[in-house]
Amino acid sequence: MKRYETLASTMADEIRSGHVPVGSRLPSLRQIMAQHGVSQSTVFRAYYLLEEWGLIRARERSGYYVAPGASVPVPLSARPASVAESAKVDISELVFSVLEAAKQPGIVPLGSAFPAPQLFPLPRLAKSLAHATRLINPWNTVVDLPPGNEQLRRQISLRYMAMGIPQPIEGIVITSGALEALNLCLMAVTRPGDVVAVESPGFYAALQAIERLDLRAVEIPVDPASGLDLAALEEALKTHPVRACWFMTNFQNPTGATLSPAKKQALVELLGQHDVPLIEDDVYGELHFQPDYPLPALAFDTRGLVMHCSSFSKTLAPGYRIGWVSAGRFTDRIQRLKLMTTLSASIPAQAGIADYLQHGGYDKHLRKVRSALRAQLHAMDAALARWLPPDVRWSRPEGGYFVWLELPEAIDAMDLHRLAIARGISLAPGPIFSARHAYRHCVRLNFGHPWAPPIENAIRTLGELLSELSARRA
Amino acid sequence: MKRYETLASTMADEIRSGHVPVGSRLPSLRQIMAQHGVSQSTVFRAYYLLEEWGLIRARERSGYYVAPGASVPVPLSARPASVAESAKVDISELVFSVLEAAKQPGIVPLGSAFPAPQLFPLPRLAKSLAHATRLINPWNTVVDLPPGNEQLRRQISLRYMAMGIPQPIEGIVITSGALEALNLCLMAVTRPGDVVAVESPGFYAALQAIERLDLRAVEIPVDPASGLDLAALEEALKTHPVRACWFMTNFQNPTGATLSPAKKQALVELLGQHDVPLIEDDVYGELHFQPDYPLPALAFDTRGLVMHCSSFSKTLAPGYRIGWVSAGRFTDRIQRLKLMTTLSASIPAQAGIADYLQHGGYDKHLRKVRSALRAQLHAMDAALARWLPPDVRWSRPEGGYFVWLELPEAIDAMDLHRLAIARGISLAPGPIFSARHAYRHCVRLNFGHPWAPPIENAIRTLGELLSELSARRA
Repeated sequence: MKRYETLASTMADEIRSGHVPVGSRLPSLRQIMAQHGVSQSTVFRAYYLLEEWGLIRARERSGYYVAPGASVPVPLSARPASVAESAKVDISELVFSVLEAAKQPGIVPLGSAFPAPQLFPLPRLAKSLAHATRLINPWNTVVDLPPGNEQLRRQISLRYMAMGIPQPIEGIVITSGALEALNLCLMAVTRPGDVVAVESPGFYAALQAIERLDLRAVEIPVDPASGLDLAALEEALKTHPVRACWFMTNFQNPTGATLSPAKKQALVELLGQHDVPLIEDDVYGELHFQPDYPLPALAFDTRGLVMHCSSFSKTLAPGYRIGWVSAGRFTDRIQRLKLMTTLSASIPAQAGIADYLQHGGYDKHLRKVRSALRAQLHAMDAALARWLPPDVRWSRPEGGYFVWLELPEAIDAMDLHRLAIARGISLAPGPIFSARHAYRHCVRLNFGHPWAPPIENAIRTLGELLSELSARRA
Repeated sequence: MKRYETLASTMADEIRSGHVPVGSRLPSLRQIMAQHGVSQSTVFRAYYLLEEWGLIRARERSGYYVAPGASVPVPLSARPASVAESAKVDISELVFSVLEAAKQPGIVPLGSAFPAPQLFPLPRLAKSLAHATRLINPWNTVVDLPPGNEQLRRQISLRYMAMGIPQPIEGIVITSGALEALNLCLMAVTRPGDVVAVESPGFYAALQAIERLDLRAVEIPVDPASGLDLAALEEALKTHPVRACWFMTNFQNPTGATLSPAKKQALVELLGQHDVPLIEDDVYGELHFQPDYPLPALAFDTRGLVMHCSSFSKTLAPGYRIGWVSAGRFTDRIQRLKLMTTLSASIPAQAGIADYLQHGGYDKHLRKVRSALRAQLHAMDAALARWLPPDVRWSRPEGGYFVWLELPEAIDAMDLHRLAIARGISLAPGPIFSARHAYRHCVRLNFGHPWAPPIENAIRTLGELLSELSARRA
């Protein structure tokens, strides 16, 4: 992440949020240099980027102005009218066919669930892994069963403390990625036939887990701007025997929505009234574009109902498969389920990440990743505005690396998916994010990859495909 | 493993098998030196060890003779009279309380499920891990999803080929240890309420999986000498709607029994007639004391009913948590279940083991481990004969590192377990190996640790505790 990219991102945020109105003149070169403490050439390069993103325009001999349309908020209307009935789930076939299609080599990975691995400090991490593995006490390879490597749990506990929500080391169970943590939590609090509240649209792994464990899903609408519909959740809690909730409160997958602190607090209070545990999936929380980590619902939990799950897979070490849950009073049950199913997470991988957290500069790395993702979002925004038909709308996440698109109602995202795959582009069509295969006119795109011509071209191609599909319908 | 230890083990096998009758004179020093190509001092040291194991006695000026009782076969009578009724399983509390008690530091680990980690080439493996991790293509950290690292799957496939039972690379799915492989197999072929045939006594993880997945178990008796009772299995298949079998065909846990090739073939044919899949747990197969790997049931499978599960946890790398299943026609379903639950095994751990298998000398290491375990079995045998009351019987496994003891019927193994824990000794009491908490007078002991005075003393203590318990009963 270059300095001019950071500057451009900051200025872009101000423009898009409406703080600098359309048509107004940007501050002078000298003002910007003084305000941000940067050189003249840095400001120039930031200008070029902002111009490329379509946010500013130069007028000859009078400087830069905010371009028309730059700050227009993007409205998003897609949401189910009401709580969906609890239903048996049958999503896996669809998800797997989409994932399989996206595996072809050389594909532009707009449908990927991961950020670009080159954003991660893999050589430094490999060093930590090699160092830590040499030091492993052989006995630990047979006794480091759940809850997991103590050094790693201590580091995770320290990070909770830094956020102001101390969690005891004893309650932290290391898992094979957050996915296992979430699955173990769900098993810990449900029996076959139970009803579980999930988000709609929501992460397909929740639906797959519900399918696999013979549970029933009740879908709670998520607004791409404000997140989970609490009134709908309240209705569901009154009308269904909900045994657990599985929600993503920060930078939700697929919409990117984040619950405000007030909504998180209200959510926890509502669940407390009904004594329903919350499985909180917070794997994107560290990828915030604002200065601070948006506190998870866990921070408002006074009754021990929240199991907070996260991992290093989206922020540091995708393939190491190390996640965790801070499970409070559910800890024992979850440890036992872990012992019964996969015994323990890989011990060298745990030790390697623990070493990296202590010595590798994780916070510095996170700052770089956040900054890179923020710039990539601006580039994605600009490309979508440039190449997509004007009746397409999309979300404006404040973290993570997913943007949620609403296409015109007549467009079928599965058609777009098939055409895009044939052109070497993957995307995540809306129906994989719903038990009822809804959101047929929606698409999730990944902006977790350094911006480059193939991505710009892929967005352009999507625009062409959309026009084609619209023409067919007309 | 010293040369004299290997020689002593070989001679001990001959004596115990009855090839050298009790009271007969051992071959002359010169004959043994010539036959085994060893020096005089090696033979002398082997003699001392055989004497210590109680197998030979010196007669002044006339040489060494086989000691009385040395070759007496050890009869074992414990077996349920018939197939147990299919039943809901409730074993976990008992298993966890036993495992928890055995976790205290410094305990003599006769109850452990693992061999001593110092038998493993951990520094060489760490080198492979460090080397391989440096070479990982970053993209593989996000795309190496199931079925897993290709190099590793190729190495595993080559090992099957060397055994004469070629398995296609495409059918090999890498898992987080064999435990996950077994669990995924069970999920792949059952639905809640289904009946699964398991061994009795059998590995408690099978019972835990059945409990967790709301299945029902039908227990098939295992004879500690000849293994699974096929007539009982046939009866069970006729009288219960058995949907799957989970059996350990080599060096079964806990008895150490191995099915003969003829029995394995008959097993596969019987299951074929009923179209019932076999989940074959073969994690101890590589730890054979005879020259060749005892072919698994998989080798006799012509209908694709066998899912063959194994791992590196018992032979090379306990904490890496890398196992696999060669799953034939169940491969797709298992891959998907893996994707849904833990996504993939740790990628550095997979790459590290793949590198070790290619360059680390796995076969040489295995020969050393087998040889060490065989000598440890002889030492365990000798210690049991020396210190335990004469009415205790035990099994004579041909591989692995477990021996199964039958105490007098009046002794309660749970009492022995509690007393032993208080004396700093763990053991695995019989009831944890049965859905009905049977085998109350049986115990599994681990001989996977290099023989040393604390182990000898622990066996002596067990002998004292047994006398104490017998006296109380009398």
